[in-house]
Amino acid sequence: VVVGSGFGGLFAVRALRRAPVDVTLLARTTQHLFQPLLYQVATGILSPGEVAPVTREVLQRQHNATVLLGDVVDVDLDRRTVVSQSLAGALVTPYDHLVVAAGSSQSYFGDEEFARLAPGLKSIDDALEVRGRIFGAFELAERVPVGALRDRLMTFVVVGAGPTGVEMAGQIAELAQRALPRQFRRIDTRRSRIVLVDAAHAVLPGMPSRLSGAAERRLRRLGVEVLLGAPVVSMDERSVTVVTGAGSRTIPAATKVWAAGVSASPLAALLADRAGASVDAAGRVAVEPDLSLPGHPEVFVVGDMAATGLPGVAQVAIQGGRYAAEQIDRSVRCLPGRRPFHYRDKGTLATVSRFSAVAWVGRLQVTGFVAWLLWLAVHLFYLIGFKNRVSTLMHWAVTFVGGSRAERAVTSQQVLGRVALQRLEERGLSVDGVENVESVDDPRDGRPAQPA
Amino acid sequence: VVVGSGFGGLFAVRALRRAPVDVTLLARTTQHLFQPLLYQVATGILSPGEVAPVTREVLQRQHNATVLLGDVVDVDLDRRTVVSQSLAGALVTPYDHLVVAAGSSQSYFGDEEFARLAPGLKSIDDALEVRGRIFGAFELAERVPVGALRDRLMTFVVVGAGPTGVEMAGQIAELAQRALPRQFRRIDTRRSRIVLVDAAHAVLPGMPSRLSGAAERRLRRLGVEVLLGAPVVSMDERSVTVVTGAGSRTIPAATKVWAAGVSASPLAALLADRAGASVDAAGRVAVEPDLSLPGHPEVFVVGDMAATGLPGVAQVAIQGGRYAAEQIDRSVRCLPGRRPFHYRDKGTLATVSRFSAVAWVGRLQVTGFVAWLLWLAVHLFYLIGFKNRVSTLMHWAVTFVGGSRAERAVTSQQVLGRVALQRLEERGLSVDGVENVESVDDPRDGRPAQPA
Repeated sequence: VVVGSGFGGLFAVRALRRAPVDVTLLARTTQHLFQPLLYQVATGILSPGEVAPVTREVLQRQHNATVLLGDVVDVDLDRRTVVSQSLAGALVTPYDHLVVAAGSSQSYFGDEEFARLAPGLKSIDDALEVRGRIFGAFELAERVPVGALRDRLMTFVVVGAGPTGVEMAGQIAELAQRALPRQFRRIDTRRSRIVLVDAAHAVLPGMPSRLSGAAERRLRRLGVEVLLGAPVVSMDERSVTVVTGAGSRTIPAATKVWAAGVSASPLAALLADRAGASVDAAGRVAVEPDLSLPGHPEVFVVGDMAATGLPGVAQVAIQGGRYAAEQIDRSVRCLPGRRPFHYRDKGTLATVSRFSAVAWVGRLQVTGFVAWLLWLAVHLFYLIGFKNRVSTLMHWAVTFVGGSRAERAVTSQQVLGRVALQRLEERGLSVDGVENVESVDDPRDGRPAQPA
Repeated sequence: VVVGSGFGGLFAVRALRRAPVDVTLLARTTQHLFQPLLYQVATGILSPGEVAPVTREVLQRQHNATVLLGDVVDVDLDRRTVVSQSLAGALVTPYDHLVVAAGSSQSYFGDEEFARLAPGLKSIDDALEVRGRIFGAFELAERVPVGALRDRLMTFVVVGAGPTGVEMAGQIAELAQRALPRQFRRIDTRRSRIVLVDAAHAVLPGMPSRLSGAAERRLRRLGVEVLLGAPVVSMDERSVTVVTGAGSRTIPAATKVWAAGVSASPLAALLADRAGASVDAAGRVAVEPDLSLPGHPEVFVVGDMAATGLPGVAQVAIQGGRYAAEQIDRSVRCLPGRRPFHYRDKGTLATVSRFSAVAWVGRLQVTGFVAWLLWLAVHLFYLIGFKNRVSTLMHWAVTFVGGSRAERAVTSQQVLGRVALQRLEERGLSVDGVENVESVDDPRDGRPAQPA
């Protein structure tokens, strides 16, 4: 059983395609999300389908793999079963080997009020919500008279200056500077204010200072205000307040985007609890050098959920998933011995805007157009599926050369649905079940035969 | 002022591009929806962006046009103003001439409970909701054991055998027969049950019997059960009940789609009330032969909202919008006389599945592949924007030749958001305002200067 359809889970399943095993992939969503391009959905460049191909389509030719939609709610390490829940009831799936790769979600460092005010960028839902808010803010600004309300509607604050925050701020600036000016008659979108704030003292903190400086200069040239060493202390509908060396500062802004931190899936804590292992501050579970859960060589934890000291990037999850698959393959073939997991760093890339990126590969530090070409090639290479590559390349041509955004239809569900959910929660009401689906009376009835 | 960004409104605005006027387009959504292809969004073929380009992008080069997002809530025929509402407050827009083209919405013939159980196909939100339910039903079916629940999950009822209903039933059948079988391991999607029901005694009732018969035969060959002369009398989470000559019949089905009727925008009744005109059973307002509101030659009502005896199709709205624009142009140029609106029927097309359609152009009745090529050409011609044509054509190639569906990422917002909204309504609570937007205190403050 593999849990999670992100980079770790999907690459583990694919690496098992020739192994003499039956694989069941349990995931909370029907799609494999290519998270590094999610910010492009949030800014109207790509469609959800392009960055999130459906997992069962990706795996349709892998006959030893079964894909099941479900939210894993329990793992029984002794009986070796995984319990998953869906709108159609619970399901108990037995396993011989388990790979858990459930990833991480946005962390608001305990302040859940921020979550409502500043959506993150971890799921398709997040990206559509952010997209609706950004384009919606410009729409409303066009309707209101000159004044404080219009200014607030035309101010965008991105919290967190890691790769996602830098990419979001850069893309909002490109929207305001290049894509939108000719489409509005009453507002000048070029006078929008885009502010990138972070508690850290550099953008792209993991990068060498030369690259980090280049990214910051490029952002400033695009008109982005970069506010470093400035942790966010409060936030409301109308503004964001940060603390700087010179005291606190309030930025009036209707739209906020959160790209400031992640915490591991709650499954990490659940596994730690079941196995008597520890979790770190980010909620990741301690693992052995072979990525296995302490005392359970048959259970692997890969990617963002494992406390390995490695960064939370796609390559760590991909290599971890493949490594776990290899150990499982060796184990079912009764081959002895396990070498510890060794991560091979292939470099780090971050893009700031069109034609401009920074790349750090081994001793090589590249900026500007060459780094951007590298970014383009690497992302196209890792995108899943030939037709997604073709259609993504087409949308990139439209956007980077022509400047327009093809995917920006805003639906009322995105905005209203989110608000409605929130209101229900405020009132302590829950949304249980969907009208066209009923629960199986006894969850254990749903226990499947082993996949054929 | 033009109200509505559908076919009637958009073509009216474009026809005024060389007229010596300032045009303000007021619309409830930011996009121009190409409704005839909405069923393709609902079945995962096209992305929302491809059938719904953003109106202000379509009109960016038309410098005499201003686009404003807003819900028209009142029209003052004496003071000649339109009041629109948005999340950022109300706005009063004065006009010299008014074109109202707010279209129609799904009609459930008074049974609003049906709306919850069987979403329609009139907006992007509808299409995403239907898409989530169809693909979600297959996902859940794969999780549950053989039995009544699985059967219900694999049964799809389409209510209404007009063009939209026929296209939906045909596409669900193609999904089940061609696109999905290899992607599931436990269910055989080819054993899905797709039922098309209608109170009428023929599919495509407006078509000649030869074409209607051909469409019905093609549907049956695809495995669709066609149940005619069978009005729906009740519906719940688990089933649909129809009355046939042989008594009532209950079809267990989790997923229902409504394509059975439309009623005009409530703006039609509002205009009728203000002008002392009458409305017909479908909520359309009576208009003069020149499409003007009785007693108000400066106000035109075009498309689905006007009781003209013409069908509710795109061509009627397009020609009506262009006609209204021409009269306005003549009027501002002080040219005398108005000829009545004359609709030129360019023919009717309906597609059943890939490579198969029916076409009725003048005396010509064509079926099969030739009709399908005609359908392809006409739809590409009327799609707005070159890049939408290219990307639509690419997705069609992928789907019609390869069989797969590129756009089927299901988000939790679509399903949960809808449920949450509904729960709030059931409890009499409303969703007012969105967190990142505040109201203008005095709505009249928002009164704009005339667009420059």
